Amino acid sequence: MSDRYTLTYEVYKQRIEQAMLGMIPEEPEVFRDGRVPQLLAEAMRYSLSAGGKRVRPVLLLATVEMLGGSVEEALPLASALEMIHTYSLIHDDLPGMDDDDLRRGRPTNHKVYGVGQAILAGDGLLNAAYEWMLANALRYPEHSLRHLRAIREIAVRAGVTGMIAGQCIDLMSENMEPDFERLRYIDRHKTADLLTAPLMAAAFLCAADDWQIRALETFGENVGVAFQIDDDLLDIEGDAVLLGKATGMDAKMGKMTWPAMAGVQEARRESAKLWDRARDAIAEFGPDGWFLREFAEVLSRRKF
Amino acid sequence: MSDRYTLTYEVYKQRIEQAMLGMIPEEPEVFRDGRVPQLLAEAMRYSLSAGGKRVRPVLLLATVEMLGGSVEEALPLASALEMIHTYSLIHDDLPGMDDDDLRRGRPTNHKVYGVGQAILAGDGLLNAAYEWMLANALRYPEHSLRHLRAIREIAVRAGVTGMIAGQCIDLMSENMEPDFERLRYIDRHKTADLLTAPLMAAAFLCAADDWQIRALETFGENVGVAFQIDDDLLDIEGDAVLLGKATGMDAKMGKMTWPAMAGVQEARRESAKLWDRARDAIAEFGPDGWFLREFAEVLSRRKF
Repeated sequence: MSDRYTLTYEVYKQRIEQAMLGMIPEEPEVFRDGRVPQLLAEAMRYSLSAGGKRVRPVLLLATVEMLGGSVEEALPLASALEMIHTYSLIHDDLPGMDDDDLRRGRPTNHKVYGVGQAILAGDGLLNAAYEWMLANALRYPEHSLRHLRAIREIAVRAGVTGMIAGQCIDLMSENMEPDFERLRYIDRHKTADLLTAPLMAAAFLCAADDWQIRALETFGENVGVAFQIDDDLLDIEGDAVLLGKATGMDAKMGKMTWPAMAGVQEARRESAKLWDRARDAIAEFGPDGWFLREFAEVLSRRKF
Repeated sequence: MSDRYTLTYEVYKQRIEQAMLGMIPEEPEVFRDGRVPQLLAEAMRYSLSAGGKRVRPVLLLATVEMLGGSVEEALPLASALEMIHTYSLIHDDLPGMDDDDLRRGRPTNHKVYGVGQAILAGDGLLNAAYEWMLANALRYPEHSLRHLRAIREIAVRAGVTGMIAGQCIDLMSENMEPDFERLRYIDRHKTADLLTAPLMAAAFLCAADDWQIRALETFGENVGVAFQIDDDLLDIEGDAVLLGKATGMDAKMGKMTWPAMAGVQEARRESAKLWDRARDAIAEFGPDGWFLREFAEVLSRRKF
């Protein structure tokens, strides 16, 4: 990976983390009108600042920059995507869902703040994502339709025909007979939708051409499913310390995954095929696509 | 109450329920791209169709009509408000929150669908509320800024400085020493914010005058807190069958409420004072305010 890539990634990441945490400052008082209550702010910040690769918001900023848009204008949308991702992790970890104790090497949100406050922290992050995207849209009245389209795209991909649909089918498919149609649905919606959202939101924000929208969608959907298969492989072969969570959980929960259904070798082949397709899609952008090309290169070799 | 009021209320209610359930049709298939999964749709519909007074969306439509706006254009915002209210009830009833088995005379969502699916049904309703408000905004490009302002207002009132803030402080105040500042904060945010939201959203959608916005906000905030105090009184004096839920739960949970802190008589006096203020605020609209005036009259005498 090039120095230019590493540096650019780091700059994006820092801007995102600063923006995100800046919107939920630490609160010195328990409660005050117009401020986030101290405990709620702390619980939200706890999960937001747990690290992670910030893959989704970085994709959004990089795509906006590739399309000649304003990173400043896009920053709240990028932060919102990470907040939506984070809320889904908090709720996923709850008893009744995956019931996990550890996430990114730290106790899960409900282990620290209790189940009730963790539910609220998740709800709060999801709602705040929209609150801040809408406030940002109102700062650019001349682009109100672009913003509406971008935010709507994020809502659809995160929603009841997108990520939440994938979570629902994932949850109800535990310990079921293997079924490839079901598995593909889960991967496409539980994971790929929220990785495609930043690419499409960036495209709408920049009023991109149709061929650009199509290429970005193909890139996102293939990266998304490949990312999930790699995740499932890491749950079998990965290093628990590096991953910051227990491995072998999918088998224990009876999750429907590529390696569980087709074996590790076949899952690796499938992932490699999808990464190839993603590379082909981004090639259409020529030299402008340098960041997304390197992004796919690096992510396809990740160990955590 | 006049026949005109009863009839108008019924018309609003029917349009809202039709619109809301029309957006989440019953699904014949378990899962299919672009459709809400069958189980998720069923869980969302279960709680949405549990009845209830539909107070929030009715307030929105009535205010839009009072201000000369289009009920058709406002309908998705009204439905979204009821969806946000319903998600908050599903999550409130979960173990770790209020842990309730009964809501509106029926088993709570998680008792029927399990905790995991109930969490997702709640998340789904919240996200879908935004998805459909945004889609609606895009249908009226000439009013995109009005819609953005209305949706943002709903997001703020429902969010981490609004309803969720109130829920957070409510939850952490169980079994605490009585504290009026804390109690007022809880009532104002847990309940009054989401009852003020429809009035303000209607005002922004119709580009109302400043005096109208101020009068509607005063009306909403007073109705909201009075509504919560009446709720707390009904939990002590109300009829469990009529209410469709167990009474005496607040005392059992150690909730901080007006009657618990100041006694039933004082709570009744406080509620009456707030209803008076609400009536004064709506008087500013003269004859145009007939529906909201009757609304306050009827609601202040409710037995469930």
